[in-house]
Amino acid sequence: NVQFSNQDGALGEPANYTQFQHVLTESELQISDAEGKKGNKEYFALDGNFTGIVNQYFYVDKKSEALVFKMKNDHLRNEVRVHKNFRTDLPNKLYTLSAEVEIIDPVASMKNSNSKQNEITFLQVHNKGLDNQGTHNVPHPLLRVVWKEDANSVKGHFWAMVKNNAVICKGSFGKKNKDKEMCKADVAYKKYDLGKAPLNKATAFDITVGNKQLIIDVDGKRLVEHDIDYWRHLLSYFKAGVYNQFTNGMSEAHFNKLEYKALE
Amino acid sequence: NVQFSNQDGALGEPANYTQFQHVLTESELQISDAEGKKGNKEYFALDGNFTGIVNQYFYVDKKSEALVFKMKNDHLRNEVRVHKNFRTDLPNKLYTLSAEVEIIDPVASMKNSNSKQNEITFLQVHNKGLDNQGTHNVPHPLLRVVWKEDANSVKGHFWAMVKNNAVICKGSFGKKNKDKEMCKADVAYKKYDLGKAPLNKATAFDITVGNKQLIIDVDGKRLVEHDIDYWRHLLSYFKAGVYNQFTNGMSEAHFNKLEYKALE
Repeated sequence: NVQFSNQDGALGEPANYTQFQHVLTESELQISDAEGKKGNKEYFALDGNFTGIVNQYFYVDKKSEALVFKMKNDHLRNEVRVHKNFRTDLPNKLYTLSAEVEIIDPVASMKNSNSKQNEITFLQVHNKGLDNQGTHNVPHPLLRVVWKEDANSVKGHFWAMVKNNAVICKGSFGKKNKDKEMCKADVAYKKYDLGKAPLNKATAFDITVGNKQLIIDVDGKRLVEHDIDYWRHLLSYFKAGVYNQFTNGMSEAHFNKLEYKALE
Repeated sequence: NVQFSNQDGALGEPANYTQFQHVLTESELQISDAEGKKGNKEYFALDGNFTGIVNQYFYVDKKSEALVFKMKNDHLRNEVRVHKNFRTDLPNKLYTLSAEVEIIDPVASMKNSNSKQNEITFLQVHNKGLDNQGTHNVPHPLLRVVWKEDANSVKGHFWAMVKNNAVICKGSFGKKNKDKEMCKADVAYKKYDLGKAPLNKATAFDITVGNKQLIIDVDGKRLVEHDIDYWRHLLSYFKAGVYNQFTNGMSEAHFNKLEYKALE
């Protein structure tokens, strides 16, 4: 039930902004119906043609020229999914997603939340599986870059949540594993503190995957160099936008820059 | 219910023959109760100590000094399992199983069989899974070297049956895949003809796995160079002995040589 409209042209249409055209051409939009139920998701611009794809959740702010992603409520999303499913284990192939992002007043977004997680995920690396058909997909993201309200009293930081093995820990394929050591939160995931999120200011993230490494630069500083040899059989892909893990509120991310690059 | 005994010492005890001591030290025995039901299997010499492990199915022929593996009936086995679970994707690590094998009168073994398959598997490469605990194991051997009675009228040849992708095609984890193209016999497996099996004469097999390749030399000639990049996430291991895929008969394999080597 997602609708696109731009009454009196107040909103910038993302496809019209040259700085976002390349990444959009390479991507599709995965967006929830904000009034729909938890986890709902619809797909648009499957061929990379974003013409006419604009509404109050997905638009360009005419003044700042930021690409804006908004979404209401828990486990709903509004994300650009880059189409390319890439190997992460080859020495001469590197894939980079570069973003300059401001999460708009996330404390206010979460002030009515009764979730314990209270996170906004805005950059992700997922896997498709062994092949482009999705065979033996692992249902856990390799990377979520999040704004997190409170992590053991560390408040309002950015974090990289990295899946640290290729073990399925949920669903019917994870039944045998989910109670084992390898599926404990601290074993299955490694969490990197990416620093305090600044107020009213964008932060630059460069995520590079390839050569069996996951690298994250924040404002030009290399904060993560994570060995992903264990991910070598899986095809991976990037997502950018907002995915809510809090209740009763609206997230809003402004991307001043969003670029995808493949070095092959 | 497998018993070991050597009445009046007529049988050679494998552990006493220096030429087999190295591979046995590195291995365990997986052997069926020949009177038990289809698929039954017991484990012995888990620590590589084969002292006292000798019976009418597993012994050394005192005259020829061949290591003999025999077994009755369909889907029963008598195999040495080399313990080492190794990566197959590293350029500088190679694992080799070398055997000189004679399958004793397999036509006679199968004369009462009513199976359509009619094979004796005598060398194998299996996978343990992502790790030594067996997580996400693929329930198909990467390689079975078999004597096959009849393959489209090609009679009595040795064949290499190579699993040609890492897709699970059976059981509960294979439900989604088993009717897809990737699980059709001709897609899931590649069959290499290793030549007519000679009568009354051993054949030399050298199986080398590593550097993303599966290599098979037969009597010193390289007959298989198979790319196993798709197997890169799995730990693999060797087996040697007999595994029956025919009914109402007894298999018998004589190994004049059986050696395992790791170049790491």
